[in-house]
Amino acid sequence: MQQVVILGGGFGGLSAARALHSAKDEVTLVDRCNYHLFQPLLYQVATGGLSPANIAAPLRRVLRRQKNTKVLLGEAIDIDVTNHRVILSDGEVPYDTLIVATGSQHQYFGHTGWEAYAPGLKTIEDATHIRRQIFLAFETAERETNKDRLRAWLTFVIVGGGPTGVELAGALGEISKDTLRHDFRSIDTAEAKILLVEGADRVLTTYPPGLSTAAERMLEGLGVIVRTSTMVTEVTVESVTLQSGERSEVVPTQTVLWAAGIQASPLGRILKEKAEAALDQVGRVIVEPDLSIPGHRDMLVIGDLANFSHQTGKPLPGLAQVAMQQGVYAARLVQRRMEDRLERGAAGERGKVVKPFHYVDKGNMATIGRKAAVADLRGLRVAGFPAWLIWLFIHLLYIVEFESRLLVMLQWAWNYFSFNRAARLITGKSPLPLDL
Amino acid sequence: MQQVVILGGGFGGLSAARALHSAKDEVTLVDRCNYHLFQPLLYQVATGGLSPANIAAPLRRVLRRQKNTKVLLGEAIDIDVTNHRVILSDGEVPYDTLIVATGSQHQYFGHTGWEAYAPGLKTIEDATHIRRQIFLAFETAERETNKDRLRAWLTFVIVGGGPTGVELAGALGEISKDTLRHDFRSIDTAEAKILLVEGADRVLTTYPPGLSTAAERMLEGLGVIVRTSTMVTEVTVESVTLQSGERSEVVPTQTVLWAAGIQASPLGRILKEKAEAALDQVGRVIVEPDLSIPGHRDMLVIGDLANFSHQTGKPLPGLAQVAMQQGVYAARLVQRRMEDRLERGAAGERGKVVKPFHYVDKGNMATIGRKAAVADLRGLRVAGFPAWLIWLFIHLLYIVEFESRLLVMLQWAWNYFSFNRAARLITGKSPLPLDL
Repeated sequence: MQQVVILGGGFGGLSAARALHSAKDEVTLVDRCNYHLFQPLLYQVATGGLSPANIAAPLRRVLRRQKNTKVLLGEAIDIDVTNHRVILSDGEVPYDTLIVATGSQHQYFGHTGWEAYAPGLKTIEDATHIRRQIFLAFETAERETNKDRLRAWLTFVIVGGGPTGVELAGALGEISKDTLRHDFRSIDTAEAKILLVEGADRVLTTYPPGLSTAAERMLEGLGVIVRTSTMVTEVTVESVTLQSGERSEVVPTQTVLWAAGIQASPLGRILKEKAEAALDQVGRVIVEPDLSIPGHRDMLVIGDLANFSHQTGKPLPGLAQVAMQQGVYAARLVQRRMEDRLERGAAGERGKVVKPFHYVDKGNMATIGRKAAVADLRGLRVAGFPAWLIWLFIHLLYIVEFESRLLVMLQWAWNYFSFNRAARLITGKSPLPLDL
Repeated sequence: MQQVVILGGGFGGLSAARALHSAKDEVTLVDRCNYHLFQPLLYQVATGGLSPANIAAPLRRVLRRQKNTKVLLGEAIDIDVTNHRVILSDGEVPYDTLIVATGSQHQYFGHTGWEAYAPGLKTIEDATHIRRQIFLAFETAERETNKDRLRAWLTFVIVGGGPTGVELAGALGEISKDTLRHDFRSIDTAEAKILLVEGADRVLTTYPPGLSTAAERMLEGLGVIVRTSTMVTEVTVESVTLQSGERSEVVPTQTVLWAAGIQASPLGRILKEKAEAALDQVGRVIVEPDLSIPGHRDMLVIGDLANFSHQTGKPLPGLAQVAMQQGVYAARLVQRRMEDRLERGAAGERGKVVKPFHYVDKGNMATIGRKAAVADLRGLRVAGFPAWLIWLFIHLLYIVEFESRLLVMLQWAWNYFSFNRAARLITGKSPLPLDL
């Protein structure tokens, strides 16, 4: 029996594992977390709209009936290409075929010191940390008597105008205008200043310009100040420095959220070192048309870690749907080879030509708030309430577990009609004293 | 306008605050957390059945329409009795009447070193920590090759046979027998050994003996080994030592949960020092029939921090319903005095005699698992499925927010029919490497 090892239980890895459900191979899925995370909704956890468990499905649960598959909680730290083994921080796993789907992480363009003051949003822990920061900022403002410091506590700067930045900014707009409106006595939360900073000349640069304009208008409707063509040149414990053209401005703030830079998982560098993989400038592995690493047809790379440029000349975007389609492709490729081997013996399979991976773009969408979203569906461009309904429907459809789907829907319905965000808990050790 | 300050947003403090909704006083509720916690269901969070936000209601949300009341996120560290001020870790609050409702915390009977190996269950952070420990134990067992260590990872010891201990043990029984049954490949989770250790000769000692026996039988049906008349004499990183009569036994285990000892909040000692309050042996403040501290009629103590022995000669138990009734009584007392003062002037009120607090016991219940519970309702004793239904109904009824009630009900319905626990996320920093 062949051993297929999948590193990473995100959209790519989990799709691959599920698509192997009837394979004769033994499948091992390795992840650092015991759950699959529905990352597109992570901003909802960060802003208190949903609970972590609403968007996380235990991997063992999802794969429990798939008897050829085992789940392993572990972290891959190296790959022994010669002996076909993945080295974990606490053990090792042999493989015949390896599917690497470890995704991406945020990066600060060399300013690693900024991370302490400008957390990014990639994990559940990131989300509850940001949630804590946001709601603690309002709590501290309520008790602050110094006017300048009060202003800084009520100033929120989101760096990066991609989907995550837009969604965070929109949610913050709603929190300050609606959710917390009657909750405080000393401050008016609606006076919070929410800045969305983007280096390019418009937000959502991967969308058609018309939808970017629509998104900016909807954000402004929620009280968000959109600052395009603006770079962040410094982040400190009490301010960010913005540069736009010649003009430089220091904005005092206690809350900076980072949604700007993405780099590939560190496993890319290991693949470069051990399997001579070529990396692009954000550390993604440049893969063959069949998603393999050149010279290593038993090693496939999928999802955010892969740079697949054979279709359009440009790398495919780091989207869930790309990763999922690549996962299914990788699983089919593995099964095809397996069947060939069984039919013709090991020698025969080498001549087989496999169709290259082909991505089918089903459209993109980003939400801005209640009733507000933009969608670009194969040429059909929608903004506002209809886009929001489509967004809602698609996202619910793709959440892995039926249970989560139901509960998320109800939670949203309730949030929608009550303007509430019930999951706005400030958790974590030693929340006090406040940083007055 | 009089200033009423309430310390603690638990069952006692929040009841007092809500009962003061139409008072002419200014009310300030101080809590270290930004939410009210429905503690009776905390064990459900610790065992992955519910999410933290399901059992926590943001205090500001609950009190948002109560215009005479403000919420203050802060920690009381001292009381200046002479100048009528509560000293916070980062500020102070003046009061005319002070209601202290800061509850209790777990204690290790002098063995403070045990806390590191045997976490207790009082806060959301405790619950997610325990959840992490439980599910990480199964994950580690799945990868463990040494037979003795494997056994230790699959051994769970719960210390204390009160309601929390019984509920935790029952939930662990279900997790190992039902929830995880199909999830692992190398281990049989049903072989997990779950020990419930109680010093007295039966569990649930505050219930009639017949219900204790019923509870023990139901626990055994879930595979829990109940060890009564047994003391814990040592807890280390890899074992607990049990003493029963002359016999001493070392049980190797990686998971010990502490549900044994309760002591009053440290504010009791401050009240002793500053207001000459008398404390009982677990640190509770011995209060007057009107819940005040002797000699300080402007200082009331309610809930788990109060020792009220005027009704039965024994202190009332540390239950939510006691705290809630005391909260309402305290609020009425404050309002009555206020009205007297307005009618007759400050001099007149001193003669007024107020009826002492009187607790109405509406019954007690503890759950053991799916369809299993015991209930003692004013003489009516119920065990098994009917008790479980009553338990479910009453608990849903008392959850503060309607939204939570609905979502908890749905989550439970789903858990019930699917045998799932969707919130079994292992969260927290650096979960890996596993402790193999």
